[in-house]
Amino acid sequence: MIPTNSIGLVATQTFTFAEDAPFVLDSGATLQPVTLAYETYGQLNAERSNAILICHALSGGAHAAGYHTGDEAPGWWDDCIGPGKAFDTDRFFVICSNVLGSCYGSSGPTTINPATGKPYGLGFPVVTVQDMVRAQVKLVDHLRINQLFCVAGGSMGGMQVLDWAADYPQRLRAAIPLATTARHSPMLIAFSEVGRQAIYADPAWNDGEYYDRPNKPDAGLAVARMVGHITYLSDDSMQEKFGRRLHGQERYGYDFRTEFEVENYLKYNGHKFTRRFDANSYLYVTKAMDYFDLSTNGSLMGAFAGATAVKFLVVSFTSDWLYPSYHSKEVVKALTAVGADVTYLDILSRWGHDAFLLEVETMTGLLTNFLGRLWREERKPYAVNRKPFAANYEKEAQ
Amino acid sequence: MIPTNSIGLVATQTFTFAEDAPFVLDSGATLQPVTLAYETYGQLNAERSNAILICHALSGGAHAAGYHTGDEAPGWWDDCIGPGKAFDTDRFFVICSNVLGSCYGSSGPTTINPATGKPYGLGFPVVTVQDMVRAQVKLVDHLRINQLFCVAGGSMGGMQVLDWAADYPQRLRAAIPLATTARHSPMLIAFSEVGRQAIYADPAWNDGEYYDRPNKPDAGLAVARMVGHITYLSDDSMQEKFGRRLHGQERYGYDFRTEFEVENYLKYNGHKFTRRFDANSYLYVTKAMDYFDLSTNGSLMGAFAGATAVKFLVVSFTSDWLYPSYHSKEVVKALTAVGADVTYLDILSRWGHDAFLLEVETMTGLLTNFLGRLWREERKPYAVNRKPFAANYEKEAQ
Repeated sequence: MIPTNSIGLVATQTFTFAEDAPFVLDSGATLQPVTLAYETYGQLNAERSNAILICHALSGGAHAAGYHTGDEAPGWWDDCIGPGKAFDTDRFFVICSNVLGSCYGSSGPTTINPATGKPYGLGFPVVTVQDMVRAQVKLVDHLRINQLFCVAGGSMGGMQVLDWAADYPQRLRAAIPLATTARHSPMLIAFSEVGRQAIYADPAWNDGEYYDRPNKPDAGLAVARMVGHITYLSDDSMQEKFGRRLHGQERYGYDFRTEFEVENYLKYNGHKFTRRFDANSYLYVTKAMDYFDLSTNGSLMGAFAGATAVKFLVVSFTSDWLYPSYHSKEVVKALTAVGADVTYLDILSRWGHDAFLLEVETMTGLLTNFLGRLWREERKPYAVNRKPFAANYEKEAQ
Repeated sequence: MIPTNSIGLVATQTFTFAEDAPFVLDSGATLQPVTLAYETYGQLNAERSNAILICHALSGGAHAAGYHTGDEAPGWWDDCIGPGKAFDTDRFFVICSNVLGSCYGSSGPTTINPATGKPYGLGFPVVTVQDMVRAQVKLVDHLRINQLFCVAGGSMGGMQVLDWAADYPQRLRAAIPLATTARHSPMLIAFSEVGRQAIYADPAWNDGEYYDRPNKPDAGLAVARMVGHITYLSDDSMQEKFGRRLHGQERYGYDFRTEFEVENYLKYNGHKFTRRFDANSYLYVTKAMDYFDLSTNGSLMGAFAGATAVKFLVVSFTSDWLYPSYHSKEVVKALTAVGADVTYLDILSRWGHDAFLLEVETMTGLLTNFLGRLWREERKPYAVNRKPFAANYEKEAQ
């Protein structure tokens, strides 16, 4: 049964572009055509000014909210998208599209290569976060939206948000990067690479050519996902969630079967992941994250020089050791230095990197307030004045 | 050339016991016979009172110091063991033995099972840290040492140290557990399990039966080691060591070859590891660590109730996120509660878990002072009085 506060039944749509002229990637390689899978929730208003673009993380897709026919679980951010929720579909027109390189309907290694009639596999060109965003710009153009009210997302979604602000500052009113970085760290690259190595090590991966074979590199992909799962949690949350509890037994078995609850959790989620994600896409999407670096000579100021009119809500979480708060603080420092309007919160949480999805109540309050304030400003006659709220408030008082 | 401050050329010896009666493990399984590989450095004094037992971590062995004939690199803790070094071989008789279950000469899965004439493989019984220590007690008996001057070690070595103090408090004068825990956390179990899953996922592992085959589960073991390597470093030390530097190229290659210096480091060390370590031993040793828990109903006080006469130097490192300082603080709290003499240091370091091996200067000062104080006390007529140093000092002043 679909809950009453859900946006309800939704369906994924596709948008195909670059049919006549190739889409040029950062690498110099081209794609022709390019397809993006996307979903929308709520209604675009007459001024086309109420659109919010949601950007997903590593393993996400366009299905961010509501239910697909027959599904028991809603989209990945249903907690925050829907009528009366943080991204309130009674007020906003919410868009979410699957990133380039992924496997949920957008062009990626599982897509049929028109030149060969077979899936691209490793023949798919390596993409960057900037390429993902450039494709999203095409979608927003297609929807005839000149300026997004907001772009929001966590983790790799947050990287896309930061790239929107850096490369297309005129196209968004506000940006909400959550639990993210403007510069992928060596530790993040290391965890990405271990996941990729686990996939390469699986003989069934076969240099990426497995789509027509009975065996897929599920074992390697599962190990990659298990590593990922540890990094999304925290020492503290694992103590609370699992402790040293045994799984289905009362004493040590002195064998190599699954014994501890935490082992069971990892195995279960690792293998479940192989039923919904593609190993090659895992390589492409993690590689895009590794390349992500908006800095020049160690400084982020240049990247955000054009983003002075964008309003930012930057959020990090105290127990997120994968994207520690200093990443967000560096972004905030650069934004402040260029004179942008930034609200920053380092939220006390035990839930590690996953907190941006799990701290629903805190996030709902925060997002509702931030978006509500902007919405009220937007609808005032002097909304064209892009000065910070305090300045506007002063004007109103005069 | 062997440096002049090295203990020089050394050789591994073996000690075999349980030839007539089986050695009973915590699981109830038995081993008959049991062999321990060990090395000693320095001279045992006439009173047999100057012996220090060094316990190694996951992938270590008996070769802790000096050089084996033909080797270019010394033993794993040569920085701290030798003439004039922290564990000063001019004063102390230093012993290090390879743990049960490992692959450096002690009984483990690579050992020939006398019942079959073939390597045990997974037929080797699962061992615990307590089993490892009980075998070390046999070695110490064999060397006719009634009381060790000290037992010291980091990481899994520290677990053995804590178990010596808990189970054989009369057999040691002092204990130095470094960067360790008395209770393996779910995060530690999770990282162990991911390493094991990487090995299981390698078809060459073949349920542990690969000793007579040309292909070994090197790919899986390498991935396990890569995960390990990340956890031994810190975000900060990786920034300093690698940053986002590329390896052997000046710009992104937009392919899946090794590009970043940190990827090269992981791959190199992962594969190097497979030339020196056995995949089955990796399973056994990590499993022993996962079982390690000295607490009863969440409290460590019971474990250390008999250790009030042992002098402890407990050390943790601020950037060690694998064995965060709270683990050591829990040990210190319990030791203090039972009235043991504890010195605790939480050392400011950027080097993560590896700090216990890398912070040589700090560790040398610390260990030298601690051991020197005990040594002077030991040689005073009232040394039998096992009260804390301060009390002894007062006596001396009277």
